[in-house]
Amino acid sequence: MSSAAETGRPRGRPRTQDDTDRRGQLLAEARRQFAARGFAAASVRSIAREVGVDPSLIHHYFGDKQQLLVASLDLPVDPPARIRTVLQGGLADLGQRIILTFLDTWDPHREAFATLIRTNSSDAHGGPARGLVDDVLVSGLAERLAGPDARLRAAQIGSMVLGLGMMRYVLQVEPLASASAQDVAQSHGAAVQWLVDGH
Amino acid sequence: MSSAAETGRPRGRPRTQDDTDRRGQLLAEARRQFAARGFAAASVRSIAREVGVDPSLIHHYFGDKQQLLVASLDLPVDPPARIRTVLQGGLADLGQRIILTFLDTWDPHREAFATLIRTNSSDAHGGPARGLVDDVLVSGLAERLAGPDARLRAAQIGSMVLGLGMMRYVLQVEPLASASAQDVAQSHGAAVQWLVDGH
Repeated sequence: MSSAAETGRPRGRPRTQDDTDRRGQLLAEARRQFAARGFAAASVRSIAREVGVDPSLIHHYFGDKQQLLVASLDLPVDPPARIRTVLQGGLADLGQRIILTFLDTWDPHREAFATLIRTNSSDAHGGPARGLVDDVLVSGLAERLAGPDARLRAAQIGSMVLGLGMMRYVLQVEPLASASAQDVAQSHGAAVQWLVDGH
Repeated sequence: MSSAAETGRPRGRPRTQDDTDRRGQLLAEARRQFAARGFAAASVRSIAREVGVDPSLIHHYFGDKQQLLVASLDLPVDPPARIRTVLQGGLADLGQRIILTFLDTWDPHREAFATLIRTNSSDAHGGPARGLVDDVLVSGLAERLAGPDARLRAAQIGSMVLGLGMMRYVLQVEPLASASAQDVAQSHGAAVQWLVDGH
């Protein structure tokens, strides 16, 4: 699957100057609302209203709210799509699949991940990327896990994925920055699996 | 132990205007070299030389290089001292002790941790705080763990500690931000223990 197909850009590619303006205005307003209110509180309806267009235009250009978030972050990959796919599999080896998918997604785009974290961390409210971690990864995991503390364990797993990205792509601490995805996933995935299983 | 005693400030507290100037100059030069070269490459000798004083004055004011790093970061706690203490105990419950110590250290200083991460992440070279993670936590752990992949597992444990701090103090994702230290340490510590044991 090509990067363009994955992020759904062909569908939203503007064809006229007017399209370009409105698409850019919607992305700017989405970035503003995701940063100011967070992913959950921001709404497709209010973003459309501020720009003065019908909400259906957002669906036409970008798809759903998660896809609008991805478009507003200008990422080279579609993390929500990857997360949905990994969560569809069984629970028995979910820990390892999460880590392998994470590394497979971001190893080719290390600089993009580092930029995302820097933008995110410099924002007092966590920035728009907070939505990716909290509302996509942690929420998706919490629905999939069993047990009364599923949401806490999902957040702990999210923290392990985030920390791995910080060390490998942002701080680039060796040998974790250069180790093979397979070596990292074997031990890291097993530790994550401990939280999946909820001992 | 009071925060002032822990960070060793009384020893380094300047008593004259001349002391204040030199102490400030040394801290500024230390911050500059840690950021530009990283903790390992920066040296007490070269920091002293740039300021035009004898290296013994750095030892007099701050102690060793790790203590100079802590002073240059202006932290309310002394993470290297905490890490040394936690590593002195046995390996059997090290995972849980690492997480409990981390939370005990930073829960009262959440904002300071967030500031440290933001300063760190916005710097293309990882910033001076990179030294805390790589040269203090990961290096200390690697010496303590057994096995040929000790350094990789130490870096993975470091990433789990860092990710926990990101989620709890920076992104403040619930319920991880508000959960009791005991609840977090129980499951998170067990996952970390998996890497300590090196299955």
